[in-house]
Amino acid sequence: MSSEETGASGSGTGTGGRVCVCPGSFDPLTLGHLDVLLRAAELFDVVHAGVAVNPDKRGTFTGPERADLVRRALAESGDPRAARVVVTEFDGGLLVEHCRRLGAPVVVKGLRSGTDYAYELPMALMNRHLTGLETVFLVGDPAYGHVSSSLVKEVARHGGDVSGLVPAAVRAALGTRLGENAPDPA
Amino acid sequence: MSSEETGASGSGTGTGGRVCVCPGSFDPLTLGHLDVLLRAAELFDVVHAGVAVNPDKRGTFTGPERADLVRRALAESGDPRAARVVVTEFDGGLLVEHCRRLGAPVVVKGLRSGTDYAYELPMALMNRHLTGLETVFLVGDPAYGHVSSSLVKEVARHGGDVSGLVPAAVRAALGTRLGENAPDPA
Amino acid sequence: MSSEETGASGSGTGTGGRVCVCPGSFDPLTLGHLDVLLRAAELFDVVHAGVAVNPDKRGTFTGPERADLVRRALAESGDPRAARVVVTEFDGGLLVEHCRRLGAPVVVKGLRSGTDYAYELPMALMNRHLTGLETVFLVGDPAYGHVSSSLVKEVARHGGDVSGLVPAAVRAALGTRLGENAPDPA
Amino acid sequence: MSSEETGASGSGTGTGGRVCVCPGSFDPLTLGHLDVLLRAAELFDVVHAGVAVNPDKRGTFTGPERADLVRRALAESGDPRAARVVVTEFDGGLLVEHCRRLGAPVVVKGLRSGTDYAYELPMALMNRHLTGLETVFLVGDPAYGHVSSSLVKEVARHGGDVSGLVPAAVRAALGTRLGENAPDPA
Amino acid sequence: MSSEETGASGSGTGTGGRVCVCPGSFDPLTLGHLDVLLRAAELFDVVHAGVAVNPDKRGTFTGPERADLVRRALAESGDPRAARVVVTEFDGGLLVEHCRRLGAPVVVKGLRSGTDYAYELPMALMNRHLTGLETVFLVGDPAYGHVSSSLVKEVARHGGDVSGLVPAAVRAALGTRLGENAPDPA
Amino acid sequence: MSSEETGASGSGTGTGGRVCVCPGSFDPLTLGHLDVLLRAAELFDVVHAGVAVNPDKRGTFTGPERADLVRRALAESGDPRAARVVVTEFDGGLLVEHCRRLGAPVVVKGLRSGTDYAYELPMALMNRHLTGLETVFLVGDPAYGHVSSSLVKEVARHGGDVSGLVPAAVRAALGTRLGENAPDPA
Repeated sequence: MSSEETGASGSGTGTGGRVCVCPGSFDPLTLGHLDVLLRAAELFDVVHAGVAVNPDKRGTFTGPERADLVRRALAESGDPRAARVVVTEFDGGLLVEHCRRLGAPVVVKGLRSGTDYAYELPMALMNRHLTGLETVFLVGDPAYGHVSSSLVKEVARHGGDVSGLVPAAVRAALGTRLGENAPDPA
Repeated sequence: MSSEETGASGSGTGTGGRVCVCPGSFDPLTLGHLDVLLRAAELFDVVHAGVAVNPDKRGTFTGPERADLVRRALAESGDPRAARVVVTEFDGGLLVEHCRRLGAPVVVKGLRSGTDYAYELPMALMNRHLTGLETVFLVGDPAYGHVSSSLVKEVARHGGDVSGLVPAAVRAALGTRLGENAPDPA
Repeated sequence: MSSEETGASGSGTGTGGRVCVCPGSFDPLTLGHLDVLLRAAELFDVVHAGVAVNPDKRGTFTGPERADLVRRALAESGDPRAARVVVTEFDGGLLVEHCRRLGAPVVVKGLRSGTDYAYELPMALMNRHLTGLETVFLVGDPAYGHVSSSLVKEVARHGGDVSGLVPAAVRAALGTRLGENAPDPA
Repeated sequence: MSSEETGASGSGTGTGGRVCVCPGSFDPLTLGHLDVLLRAAELFDVVHAGVAVNPDKRGTFTGPERADLVRRALAESGDPRAARVVVTEFDGGLLVEHCRRLGAPVVVKGLRSGTDYAYELPMALMNRHLTGLETVFLVGDPAYGHVSSSLVKEVARHGGDVSGLVPAAVRAALGTRLGENAPDPA
Repeated sequence: MSSEETGASGSGTGTGGRVCVCPGSFDPLTLGHLDVLLRAAELFDVVHAGVAVNPDKRGTFTGPERADLVRRALAESGDPRAARVVVTEFDGGLLVEHCRRLGAPVVVKGLRSGTDYAYELPMALMNRHLTGLETVFLVGDPAYGHVSSSLVKEVARHGGDVSGLVPAAVRAALGTRLGENAPDPA
Repeated sequence: MSSEETGASGSGTGTGGRVCVCPGSFDPLTLGHLDVLLRAAELFDVVHAGVAVNPDKRGTFTGPERADLVRRALAESGDPRAARVVVTEFDGGLLVEHCRRLGAPVVVKGLRSGTDYAYELPMALMNRHLTGLETVFLVGDPAYGHVSSSLVKEVARHGGDVSGLVPAAVRAALGTRLGENAPDPA
């Protein structure tokens, strides 16, 4: 199935089923991200977890490391919906181009607060303007309303406990990468 | 297909395809509502335009009148997506019950501003709490960001021109219902 | 100068100078309203304080009473800018029609918070859609950020002290109108 | 200890300890309210759950019924902090007067979203203006972010299950008061 | 006309007419900026498009390049209001000082969302505090609600089409400056 | 009293009295900060002004300089509540750890707008998640709603007058540190 055909149908309902992209830097994946990926897999036949790698910015994990952590967390989740999630790296370029290539006419984003929405709105409208790409917002689980990659890394960097915030695989990777600054347990 | 089976699958992807509900009082339908209904029909196989009638509140139009206006506006739109929209009246009762009956595991709502989202969020979380009903938010066309049923009725009541705000069928109905106060054209 | 000519020029800069309307129910005028009226008079040659009277809703003060209180407060302010403010009653009808009649191509509104803006935005866009009427937002004095007619009346109704919230003339009128419920001073 | 002395000290730390008021209509108490009352009791020696009864508005429960439900829910909570919460009815009047009478220089309110804060801010500033009454905001448990008395009543009125939203005592009372409209279990 | 005299009158209505400043980095000008400049020219006799150049930050275009693009876009607009817009470079320094020098007692800013307002509010209050400089907010055309210089540059950098987002002159300049990274058309 | 015991009691009401922390970078202290510190001292027996020093970021003032300015401003304030404020430097590390060490079960933050709340909320929830640390929000004086350290430094850097924004000691220090760029008085 070429992406041109899918784009033309405007619905993503070709033989491959409905396809969406959940983009993010996933540096690293949190339980909030995982919740949204699985909710998206409730609505779509194929969900691309689009790991966006900004070539001009050095992340805590490399693109392949992040993608690998998403794959491992999905596998460890034991959730049947995880089977519909595919991990895809995006190296630079516009989101609309990645979606076109993947035959995905829809982007799915999780929202926490109204502030999140205000931040996402211009990008959603820009993507619609550029190629007609539609954006769908899901409400994340409020239990993860305070969980962001940056806050999780700040906690891990100072030796705080990140269980309950990230999947086990990510927790281990954070400990290895950032744990050198962790204080001795008291 | 019984709604129980659909509820159990959690995805609404039985033989009848993916089903969602776009609830609202539609008193009356605006071009903003129509835009969201057609966007939803891009994502789902069956979209129920759920005309909610509050038995304790007298609207400008009765439930059947509102439903009829939605049907006529869809027909007049000439949009192929309109064929996937079914108009359904909701007389009292909880939205989660209506959705269960219709085999719809998803509600679709259009958002204009971040304020809209703050208003919708508690209801979305309550519905999820009650039956696991998921809510999906779409970004309405900014060209209709100022268009609400109440503002449209205020304009029509004082003889203002509502073209560009509501479909032709609604415009005519508003003129008949509220137009008695309209000033003579100057 | 007919309002049609002014409307056509789109700038309100005829021989009568620049004209704007500050609409509100002014039931009653607060110090926050007065601040915005005087700021508007810094920017425009003629400011119409448009006292909107909703015929379907009984206010605390009648339209003529409210207009009279605005006039007295302006006179008592001793502010030279007050000379450029004209008090005008709006009995029903659309704001865009009142502005057209007054030759005012601009509405001025005071903003307190971002919430105020979210509330005003659809009306501003609707007015622009209807006749091209422009809306200009001014930032009110933060010292009056908590002052609204309804909160002031609630205070006065229970015998609280409203000085510092409304002009002296309004304070006296509130005492007469709502003061019967005031407790005896302890 | 007279309230005048406490007011003068400005700290509420007389021999009776620190005193605050958590006002609300509590019509009826939700688990979100209970969470905030107990958090307040972590910070203050005496917490007045101030059940505000608006004489002009007929509630679902009377003032004494609401106060009784708060008392029973506190007793049933088994939480040691509940011993520091006193239930007090407020019949009309300004909050600042009730607080003065109770010797409480501080009001405690729970916040869910930024929208809540925007709503509470003018009242907090007005109360500070009137008597120097301070307002302290606590962040409610996000698990109850969608729980409000009005939404709970809407669910109960249509026969929905309110467990997990209100304490057991309230759940029973809601069933008796509103349950007559409940549909037969299917 | 010296700026001191204008500043003293507090209204900017000297012989030179009413003067305002629309400040921004304009790196580069978008159609949203152009819309606000022309709306401001509806309200003021002279509008200074104040191109702010931060000496500590390297922009995509230099100050003179940005100013030149604003001038060319105004000329190409064919809009009669463009004749009242003057392009002025601001090299460092406080906005209040630039406005004083230009005899402008008013700053005009376009707002998109309530988030924009929250961002602008502290600066507006600070400028008022410093010299009494007033800030006037206009509502931009919602059709450009998603258009910002940074988003436009991100699109252009990856070879996306920016027509409909920026004036023709800017589009050409962006192509020359950022287009080297554009992918070959597929 | 060891911090472990205090942490265990969960209320901070040991023999040392109620303890809270007001964290911030205080680079430098503004009158808005001072207002919140003194309000906190109304509610708590000991208020730690926690001067957070980010070892990876060079501030305008060093940690000891900032702490010294807070101490001098408190002393110069002549306010009796200042006696309950202790200045404490935080060099890196998690806020929850600093609070545990100081025996403070509560963080106090001042809020200006709803935007501030949206920014603070995830951190408050994260801190609660990590150690049960509670966050209390106070409403700052609206007279300082526009006053932030960064805006104050921008004004000072360009020779603007910062009186009315920061205490006298800070004003002098800003003049010495940033004043080299100040223009000659005209």
